[in-house]
Amino acid sequence: MRTSEGFVPGLDGVIAARTEISFLDVDREKIVIRGEDLIALAKDKTYFDVVHLLLEGYIPSQEEKSSLEDNIKGYYSLPEDTLPVFNLLPKGMHPMDGMRTVISLLAGYDTDLENRSNKENKQRAYELLGQLPFITVNSYFATEGKAIASSDESLGYSANFLYMITGKKPSNLEVEIFDQLLLLYSEHEMPNSTFASRVIASTNADMYGALTGAISSLKGHLHGGANEAVMYMLQEVDSVDGFEALIRHKLQNKEKIMGFGHRVYMKKMDPRATITKEALRKLCERDNDDTLLKMCEAGEEIMREEKGLYPNLDYYAAPVYWKLGIPIPLYTPIFFSARTAGLAAHIIEQHDNNRIFRPRVEYTGKSY
Amino acid sequence: MRTSEGFVPGLDGVIAARTEISFLDVDREKIVIRGEDLIALAKDKTYFDVVHLLLEGYIPSQEEKSSLEDNIKGYYSLPEDTLPVFNLLPKGMHPMDGMRTVISLLAGYDTDLENRSNKENKQRAYELLGQLPFITVNSYFATEGKAIASSDESLGYSANFLYMITGKKPSNLEVEIFDQLLLLYSEHEMPNSTFASRVIASTNADMYGALTGAISSLKGHLHGGANEAVMYMLQEVDSVDGFEALIRHKLQNKEKIMGFGHRVYMKKMDPRATITKEALRKLCERDNDDTLLKMCEAGEEIMREEKGLYPNLDYYAAPVYWKLGIPIPLYTPIFFSARTAGLAAHIIEQHDNNRIFRPRVEYTGKSY
Ligand SMILES: CC(C)(COP(=O)(O)OP(=O)(O)OC[C@H]1O[C@@H](n2cnc3c(N)ncnc32)[C@H](O)[C@@H]1OP(=O)(O)O)[C@@H](O)C(=O)NCCC(=O)NCCS
Ligand SMILES: CC(C)(COP(=O)(O)OP(=O)(O)OC[C@H]1O[C@@H](n2cnc3c(N)ncnc32)[C@H](O)[C@@H]1OP(=O)(O)O)[C@@H](O)C(=O)NCCC(=O)NCCS
Repeated sequence: MRTSEGFVPGLDGVIAARTEISFLDVDREKIVIRGEDLIALAKDKTYFDVVHLLLEGYIPSQEEKSSLEDNIKGYYSLPEDTLPVFNLLPKGMHPMDGMRTVISLLAGYDTDLENRSNKENKQRAYELLGQLPFITVNSYFATEGKAIASSDESLGYSANFLYMITGKKPSNLEVEIFDQLLLLYSEHEMPNSTFASRVIASTNADMYGALTGAISSLKGHLHGGANEAVMYMLQEVDSVDGFEALIRHKLQNKEKIMGFGHRVYMKKMDPRATITKEALRKLCERDNDDTLLKMCEAGEEIMREEKGLYPNLDYYAAPVYWKLGIPIPLYTPIFFSARTAGLAAHIIEQHDNNRIFRPRVEYTGKSY
Repeated sequence: MRTSEGFVPGLDGVIAARTEISFLDVDREKIVIRGEDLIALAKDKTYFDVVHLLLEGYIPSQEEKSSLEDNIKGYYSLPEDTLPVFNLLPKGMHPMDGMRTVISLLAGYDTDLENRSNKENKQRAYELLGQLPFITVNSYFATEGKAIASSDESLGYSANFLYMITGKKPSNLEVEIFDQLLLLYSEHEMPNSTFASRVIASTNADMYGALTGAISSLKGHLHGGANEAVMYMLQEVDSVDGFEALIRHKLQNKEKIMGFGHRVYMKKMDPRATITKEALRKLCERDNDDTLLKMCEAGEEIMREEKGLYPNLDYYAAPVYWKLGIPIPLYTPIFFSARTAGLAAHIIEQHDNNRIFRPRVEYTGKSY
């Protein structure tokens, strides 16, 4: 779809960056992260293994992983002076907008904000990863008018994250699945939010600035916001027949079905969705109730038959979050929280080897 | 600089959007805004003429301009409940980060946030333009530990903006020059911040989200942040000789000189800078002291001779702001405030005719 002037809507297929971080190798069905395959890692590694891989370049030893955990755990709370900001987030505000406000404010509390060194940027990323469960959960609670939740430092990262959300100590299965979701969401080459954060970082803007841009992007319905939309759709009905009818009705109205399609995988199943579907199966077995799984499968089949489109990660992540007892408005914030690992790696790479993004336009306006 | 895989660093020369809004016609030396030339407009039109041109598509009649002013004036203040946010901006925080925090929070107070219609988006832009002098000035005062300033509704937009900054009723000459700066900063095709906001808006993200991304971008030293850097440089010395020595010293150290160079105009003078230089001359005449002008001219000459580089708008805008009595940390915030008119036009255009930005990468990482 290249025009005479070379314009490609949405920069479809255009190479916008050279990166050592990741690559979607669709032909070989791999999500390559610094030489490793994310899909293989999802089977026996944890989120923190991938955080280390993204930011340090390799899978950590057991010792390195413990020291990473200690480092990140040192930042479970926010500077005391920033806490009143949660009271200012009005009821009904989307928690993504709340998180963006909090992270924007945190820039003012970074005492070495102008330092763009690789070392400082990495440490900043670890601090933010430590703070994110607190920011994520409390941005939601604040906009629901609920009291601030605190961390349980005796728990691991993912267990504490889930505990802060639900207020209950999660089971091993729940922690495993939640951690796997964080891992799967951690990095995915050059989606819109990663691109937005690299564009911003290329002016030599700081990490908070690049991340606030990414939050704004990720909230959009065509991007991270899709996982919430999928769950609202599943909630509208309560049976396989009902869901089939809903999807067919939407297709007739020429509506886009959230959770389907992907710029890169358009005609294949997102390999991450296959893993998340398996997690949904496990949670359905736990509950002796496979309605949600059957509904999703029915939707999958209609979309394949009618449109030749396949589920993306958000499609199966939504019912998994639901089964974990996570309120819907937290789906996209958790996506952002997990993705911060990958975003930070991209921002660091951009700062380390930069040229400002400044493209041109094709002018189609009034003649002059 | 196209690589074998087609990668162009910084998307230099790549067409990223089709737009009816603006175009830098370097050959014909025009900054085209919806068919008009910004440089010609700068001579006898006002900022609000260009705001109307950007958002409504044509230069308004006297009547249309008055009703636009009335509309915008209706939004000089912020929702009462948001005001405590200014107290949370810590001393020393950059006002750009403060503004970003405030505008991010405002998303929570928009009662029709999910409405992306052209009409609603435009009205949202007018509201923000009304609020921006308040947000800009008080983000600065807050981070200086000073009390909140209020608007003087008896004054015109630019006069009130300047009055809020300096606390003094400005002269006609000062208002004219300040308004002309707003006009010159209002729109400039596809610089990084405009690109960032279109990238974000393309996920169907809302205007606040796209604007917070633009603020983050604009703060970067390679972009809007340059005008502040220019003034800090001019302040380091107090004579023509001193400034010449400083520039030569920086060049010897292979430092970039802020305020010079431009992706699109690289080997020509930014036509906006010519106008702003003229404004500087007028302010020097007023003060019977042309030191600043002479210093800038000396810097201009060295850069032309040594590097073949020309001043951009930020180079001459900085000393003009200075002569208007504006504190340096407000230079980039004022740039953003003025540019919001153009950014809003681009966000609206993106929403009206959208495809999500999602480019690819050239992977240069570990083999697999
Ligand atoms: C992901 C997405 C934004 C990719 O966008 P894109 O690469 O620009 O793809 P296009 O919008 O050009 O889609 C190509 C065709 O498939 C159709 N299509 C794509 N996704 C669709 C969906 N979810 N439902 C119905 N039709 C869809 C488009 O309408 C288009 O059809 P057309 O050629 O007849 O106009 C898009 O598939 C989408 O909007 N999906 C739903 C939102 C979502 O789940 N996002 C999360 C992504 S991880
Ligand atoms: C505006 C700017 C970011 C454009 O970037 P760009 O299109 O990527 O240009 P490049 O950095 O590739 O510059 C091309 C050459 O000119 C040199 N150059 C560009 N701007 C320069 C400056 N302000 N001072 C010294 N050298 C400069 C570069 O070093 C490069 O030289 P090289 O080829 O020997 O490496 C760049 O000119 C700059 O950094 N200017 C200073 C910041 C500024 O004023 N920004 C406000 C812009 S409105």
